[in-house]
Amino acid sequence: MGENYEVIGKSVPRIDGVAKATGRAKYTGDLKFPNMLVGKILHSPHAHARILNIDTSEAEKLPGVKAVITHRDVPSTKYGLSPARWDETIFCIDKVRFVGDKVAAVAAVDEETAYKALKLIKVDYEVLPAVFDPYEALKEGAPQIFEEYPGNINTEIHQHFGDVDKAFAEAYHVRRDFFSGQRTYHSPLEPHVSIAFWEGPKVTVYSSNQSVHYLQYHLARVFGMPMGNVRVLKTHVGGGFGGKLDPTGLDFAAVKLSQITGRPVKMLYDRKEMFYNNRGRHAQYMELTTGVTKEGKILGVHANFVMDGGAYTGLGVASAYYAGALLTVLYDFDNYKFDMIRAVTNLPGCGAQRGHGQPQPRFAFESHLDHIAEDLGIDPLEIRIINARKPKTVTINDFKVDSYALKEALEKAREISGWREKKGKLPPGRGIGVGNGGFVSGAGYPCYRTDLPQAVAIIKVHDDGSMATLYTGAVEIGQGSDTVLLQMAAEAMGYPLEKMRIVAGDTDLATHDFGAYASRQTLMSGWAVKKAGEEVKNKILQTAAEMMLVVPEQLDVKQGVVFLKAHPEESLTFEEVARTYFVKYGQLIGQGSYKPPKLGGTFKGAAVGTSPAYSAATQVAEVEIDEETGEIKVIEAWDVHDCGMVINPALLHGQVHGAFYMGMGESIWEEVLFDEKGDVANGNLAEYRMPTALDMPPVTSELVDSIDPNAPWGVKEVGEGATTPTMACLANAIYDAMGVRIESLPLTYEKVWRALKEKREKEKA
Amino acid sequence: MGENYEVIGKSVPRIDGVAKATGRAKYTGDLKFPNMLVGKILHSPHAHARILNIDTSEAEKLPGVKAVITHRDVPSTKYGLSPARWDETIFCIDKVRFVGDKVAAVAAVDEETAYKALKLIKVDYEVLPAVFDPYEALKEGAPQIFEEYPGNINTEIHQHFGDVDKAFAEAYHVRRDFFSGQRTYHSPLEPHVSIAFWEGPKVTVYSSNQSVHYLQYHLARVFGMPMGNVRVLKTHVGGGFGGKLDPTGLDFAAVKLSQITGRPVKMLYDRKEMFYNNRGRHAQYMELTTGVTKEGKILGVHANFVMDGGAYTGLGVASAYYAGALLTVLYDFDNYKFDMIRAVTNLPGCGAQRGHGQPQPRFAFESHLDHIAEDLGIDPLEIRIINARKPKTVTINDFKVDSYALKEALEKAREISGWREKKGKLPPGRGIGVGNGGFVSGAGYPCYRTDLPQAVAIIKVHDDGSMATLYTGAVEIGQGSDTVLLQMAAEAMGYPLEKMRIVAGDTDLATHDFGAYASRQTLMSGWAVKKAGEEVKNKILQTAAEMMLVVPEQLDVKQGVVFLKAHPEESLTFEEVARTYFVKYGQLIGQGSYKPPKLGGTFKGAAVGTSPAYSAATQVAEVEIDEETGEIKVIEAWDVHDCGMVINPALLHGQVHGAFYMGMGESIWEEVLFDEKGDVANGNLAEYRMPTALDMPPVTSELVDSIDPNAPWGVKEVGEGATTPTMACLANAIYDAMGVRIESLPLTYEKVWRALKEKREKEKA
Repeated sequence: MGENYEVIGKSVPRIDGVAKATGRAKYTGDLKFPNMLVGKILHSPHAHARILNIDTSEAEKLPGVKAVITHRDVPSTKYGLSPARWDETIFCIDKVRFVGDKVAAVAAVDEETAYKALKLIKVDYEVLPAVFDPYEALKEGAPQIFEEYPGNINTEIHQHFGDVDKAFAEAYHVRRDFFSGQRTYHSPLEPHVSIAFWEGPKVTVYSSNQSVHYLQYHLARVFGMPMGNVRVLKTHVGGGFGGKLDPTGLDFAAVKLSQITGRPVKMLYDRKEMFYNNRGRHAQYMELTTGVTKEGKILGVHANFVMDGGAYTGLGVASAYYAGALLTVLYDFDNYKFDMIRAVTNLPGCGAQRGHGQPQPRFAFESHLDHIAEDLGIDPLEIRIINARKPKTVTINDFKVDSYALKEALEKAREISGWREKKGKLPPGRGIGVGNGGFVSGAGYPCYRTDLPQAVAIIKVHDDGSMATLYTGAVEIGQGSDTVLLQMAAEAMGYPLEKMRIVAGDTDLATHDFGAYASRQTLMSGWAVKKAGEEVKNKILQTAAEMMLVVPEQLDVKQGVVFLKAHPEESLTFEEVARTYFVKYGQLIGQGSYKPPKLGGTFKGAAVGTSPAYSAATQVAEVEIDEETGEIKVIEAWDVHDCGMVINPALLHGQVHGAFYMGMGESIWEEVLFDEKGDVANGNLAEYRMPTALDMPPVTSELVDSIDPNAPWGVKEVGEGATTPTMACLANAIYDAMGVRIESLPLTYEKVWRALKEKREKEKA
Repeated sequence: MGENYEVIGKSVPRIDGVAKATGRAKYTGDLKFPNMLVGKILHSPHAHARILNIDTSEAEKLPGVKAVITHRDVPSTKYGLSPARWDETIFCIDKVRFVGDKVAAVAAVDEETAYKALKLIKVDYEVLPAVFDPYEALKEGAPQIFEEYPGNINTEIHQHFGDVDKAFAEAYHVRRDFFSGQRTYHSPLEPHVSIAFWEGPKVTVYSSNQSVHYLQYHLARVFGMPMGNVRVLKTHVGGGFGGKLDPTGLDFAAVKLSQITGRPVKMLYDRKEMFYNNRGRHAQYMELTTGVTKEGKILGVHANFVMDGGAYTGLGVASAYYAGALLTVLYDFDNYKFDMIRAVTNLPGCGAQRGHGQPQPRFAFESHLDHIAEDLGIDPLEIRIINARKPKTVTINDFKVDSYALKEALEKAREISGWREKKGKLPPGRGIGVGNGGFVSGAGYPCYRTDLPQAVAIIKVHDDGSMATLYTGAVEIGQGSDTVLLQMAAEAMGYPLEKMRIVAGDTDLATHDFGAYASRQTLMSGWAVKKAGEEVKNKILQTAAEMMLVVPEQLDVKQGVVFLKAHPEESLTFEEVARTYFVKYGQLIGQGSYKPPKLGGTFKGAAVGTSPAYSAATQVAEVEIDEETGEIKVIEAWDVHDCGMVINPALLHGQVHGAFYMGMGESIWEEVLFDEKGDVANGNLAEYRMPTALDMPPVTSELVDSIDPNAPWGVKEVGEGATTPTMACLANAIYDAMGVRIESLPLTYEKVWRALKEKREKEKA
């Protein structure tokens, strides 16, 4: 795929690889500043309670305590990532809404003192009845958690495209199934950390986060400061996966505690507190009804979903819309109805987790589709080929899909997995399953300031041409964006990659960019980078033309050599030309910004789910089930991704492996559990069961040719899409192996064991 | 002067003031990096010796020593600041040339171990005869210090403009005098410090220096690296005064030691080592012959000078040229001859010190002129007015002088000092003297890469317009350039100063600029900043015009408000407009670069001393002499400066006070002394006698109106020019007080006492 390119399409090592592998890389938690204090947050012990009084006097008296703050000391301005649902405050004012809600914070000379101080804060609560289940929360008479959400309904969506009832009436077969997905948590290795310090009117915040510009915006807005007085930057980030997009209590508290004490304040969440902060995957309850022709062509779909949002909205409005909106992309059908209620409960607030809103609906739909295929006697892979969307089409809910190679992905997956030889033909206990997925390549509209460009990039060439620096607000969180964007810059400039430097993820030094979420950076930040690089290239060609007495159109530049296209031996080095430019015109810089065209329809919520380009992915997995114990062993997996042009194949395949790993963990083992008080019961890495390397099967990651016309060099997303087919793929494989259908995630050994037991009992009966 | 401006012309506080005053400012020596080693340099104990062998084996064995390097381990590439006289290597190869020459370096876990290791390095020397006096060095048969300088002549200049012999023949009076100036050292409070660390192919060097780009260039050149792989940056700098322009042994050794050890290496010079590194003022021997008319008009001048250069050239070629070249600027005469020999000796190498090459020749000429005035019976101030250069003239050596208000400065100084009431009329023991001076506002040609722009600046406006960052390679060394350049940026943009940020003095993050020397930054960096600001302003006016449906010419922007000139109440905020620009066009940036027009004549050395603009200064001082002891007390001083438009009056007057302080120290007390071996005898702040606050008289600093057409807003220099009149001003005041003429600097109490004794004896006889 990279044969026509010099720098992109190549598996160059990631630029932060050596630093990370040798331990030299400093994460936010590694940073120390002179005179730094440690801050900690006091969390609510009750799931729902009225705050009657907070007495911080004893805590303040403790030697070594430098500041104690509650809602009385900070703005009461509400914030959140869903523009119309700002419902969170720095600290709880009147009520606490879940075990772990933020009540107060301290700054002290060390962690021990800070923890002691937390214990000395006396909070009088009037405990209120709590509700932990969305269906309970939606019942009449349930405890009301927010005044602004009567009936505990946070978001309610009713969309109808075409005529579903008519489609069902005309269908050869209509089937309804019900599925559920559990709460999971991203569990990045690095906890949330925030360090704030003030200089004059300006605060600097080092935060382990996915979007320095989102955080800057919310800090500035809540504290009533000009954005220019808030600098947010990040060093290396140890994973985000959606959980580091929301501003955290740490960020706000550190800023205020630092302002009061005049000293840098470092705050971090311990593992349990990370589960309180959450923003992980919603629990979701999904009823699907689909009408098909005899040949398996889908005529209409009705998705009727309920989500457990937990206590605050965060990005939850988008999560709710995404769940239904993107169901229309993979398969081509003309009638679609989507009903959704996102309820609030007295549990930690949910948000975006890799694949945002998609993996569970895909689990549901892809399981459902297997049932339909079985009902009709069609091969499950075949029914997907029959329905697969074609490129250059528009979905019923107005998403413009220009490149789309799902059919090719399915065919290639069938090929490489040996589907035909295996499906229904594997030895007892073994099974094979297929699932499809995909994702947006950046959300068409950001969560705030929707009129802004999505991304801006500047490239500055050193005066002697021996170095060029890319300035981008893109945020490297481990996904490899720094490396990929530098490859794109070098390609666009015709410059060698090894001479590129990057300044990224810093609201002062870098450029505007909405950051790392919605799989947006390769396409959106990439557009800005490509344009900036091309501006540099044009200036180089113009200057070289003046030097060589030709016109720029006769020249090209590759890997630092400017040459006559007709006589490549007639050449100048990029350095010579850059230096001449510098002497004649001053600093050689290029600049690019990207704003997608208007996307989506005109109905309510039409913006959510729009993207300039959509990826598609097919996964096939083979499993082995232990009939005695229900143990699921994933034997092998195959992923074929339509992710457009690939900038760095090694990083791409790494994303696929990571996505499959994460999808597999959520499929089989991971679930956030709560005790009867509503407290997280397994908020640690021993009891929250993530897979290990030993659980990881061989994964073959393959690509299909696909170049998206709306993307720089035709790139599309890969980081999230590859998580979305996994749950169904494994559920379908289990069904193929044992004939049991697990309809609720996770597909635990116990559930398989119970289903097998039930099946045997039924067969006996 | 600032009445027409919003931000410039105002004494805003310096932006680093609070950090420096509260001790929060971190200097290079304050920086600590994980795993950092300490490096030290081994200096030669001999003034002149052949290196027979260096044995580092014992030093290498010492526990805690991580590396020992000599000339064998580093490139032998020569470097220096005079393009045609690169004669210094990182370490001595064949010979040492002064006590303190660099022989080897070590890196160790702490300073104590490093010092121990230095003692374990065994160097076998063959001691050679040494020479410490330039006249001795120039004698036939003197020890030859460099092969490349036969007869120890480093630089020889013979320039003749007009016909001096004819002028003397036609003169009413011809007078010849001989003066000498001593070696002095800048003695900044902060020592030289360098910290180097490598990441992959790239080295980062924090160095307390005056030009990050000069240092980057020399490090890259000597180590054979692309400039892009060398990042030089600085934090706060505790004074430079010319002594931190040359790359030091610390910079080179730290880079190499860090490369070998893979760890950060910090190196600093102790106070004695600072005197070894030197680059301070040359000792200079000055014979002046001048012919005048009966009315005091100067017809011709012959300057015949010898300089002691010490062991290496550094910036010494420029020092030699400057000494004669700028003598032509102040007074208008048509015949001029300049002969100069800069000899090398076995003492530390000299270079640029505040006023570079000028203070001693001005001491000589202004003393000489007082003699001539006395000979003719003309008031010394009057003879200066008679000869003062007029604006819009060209000197005999082809310097274009556009603005020049020396006459006005003299008249104002006469007025404010009460000259007429005091001259010859003060009580016994009291005297008043006058001296003139001035300087370039940036050298017309840099020391390397003369084709480059002198300065480049970029201004980046934050997306919501609430902040703008100035990127400049200018180097704040305490003179206030960060503050002054931000004022200029804000003025040019029409933006409030308090919203400006700066990134300066960093070869990676900032822009190209030759740095802080030759009083160049306000004019040269200022030009680039002004142009960058105006580009931002133009974009703002264009965008505002689109928003207000007018043409840009109808609008202006001041202090962050864009308004219709005809109806100022019709306005938009800069923020609104900037945000609109950002939405429509992407990042709002402005860019400027500055390159002076071709300056100077065509004769050899014509480039040295050229500048786009020349300042002028008159100083008057009143002294009181203790007849018994010769003690000199400076009672009061007046400085009137023609420095063009003033950006920040408080900083300007601070420069004048500092310059007078420094000039006074050099006039009366400061002298670097050597023992018989050639070792610095007073290399510490106890014995190298700088004045204290108690020695400082009241100094009245005044300005004359003068706007230079070649400068941004008409600015000119002040930092160095105000040092140049002081020595003569004090010598002339002593003469006025006591009738004794001290012709050799410093004008010590002892010299005055001896002169008075001699005078009394002569009078008795």
